Amino acid sequence: MASKTVIALRISAVAAGLAIAAPAAAQFQKPEDAVKYRQSAFTVMSNHMGRLAAMAKGERPFDAAAAQASARVIETMARLPWEAFVPATEGLKSGAKPALYQNLADVRTLADRLNGETGKLRGSVGDLDALRKQLGATGAACKACHDKYRVM
Amino acid sequence: MASKTVIALRISAVAAGLAIAAPAAAQFQKPEDAVKYRQSAFTVMSNHMGRLAAMAKGERPFDAAAAQASARVIETMARLPWEAFVPATEGLKSGAKPALYQNLADVRTLADRLNGETGKLRGSVGDLDALRKQLGATGAACKACHDKYRVM
Repeated sequence: MASKTVIALRISAVAAGLAIAAPAAAQFQKPEDAVKYRQSAFTVMSNHMGRLAAMAKGERPFDAAAAQASARVIETMARLPWEAFVPATEGLKSGAKPALYQNLADVRTLADRLNGETGKLRGSVGDLDALRKQLGATGAACKACHDKYRVM
Repeated sequence: MASKTVIALRISAVAAGLAIAAPAAAQFQKPEDAVKYRQSAFTVMSNHMGRLAAMAKGERPFDAAAAQASARVIETMARLPWEAFVPATEGLKSGAKPALYQNLADVRTLADRLNGETGKLRGSVGDLDALRKQLGATGAACKACHDKYRVM
């Protein structure tokens, strides 16, 4: 009974893996392309988080149009990387811990949390206090995944 | 007289270079970050151009929601790389020809052309013929700059 359950769980894990991998595989010619793509999305997102943080901390003058543009870039980028964490990229050089590939459903949950927070960024940039608060919530959503699944 | 003109032109070129470099420098901690940032934006843009092209060519089934999302990503990415072509990045390893740094005003004109075309992509995805046409115009705008300023 116990072993049947284990087998059933394994089969559904494989099926879930395929469900994630199938559309993604079509988007990337080879696994290295998937790694490069997700890292690129993170690079652009991180740069714009830095721009908003500099304004929120008063290190740079607040610029409403630039903040709005950065919020939109972050919101757009935050939707992209997840489909590129396909099993075929496991073992390739990247910042992903091996544990990430064993917990793709958890990664999806954390990604949904991030998307929820980045979706509120644009609405927050009109007010510096609101921006600070929403940036904090967004940064916490980034960190929740980094702490579990990113090397370093 | 001729040499005074040359000096005046050089001074305005330096001033123009500073005008471009000043805000950009604030966005990147070091020149390498600027190169990584612009390459990342190009990587994401190129991937989504590939997705739309695959649908336009019938290599992949047309998916209106995915096409709309890709068009939006391309439009957003096409605005980003230009500020990262700062003089401080000249000489760093990248796909940029040295000529690019001597023609930043032309690069800006080509970037504006690209932004004009990518701005029409979202409006074209509802009709496969319109999408094919607009993808062609967008690809031609990419190529116009690649031919002049990209290595290979």
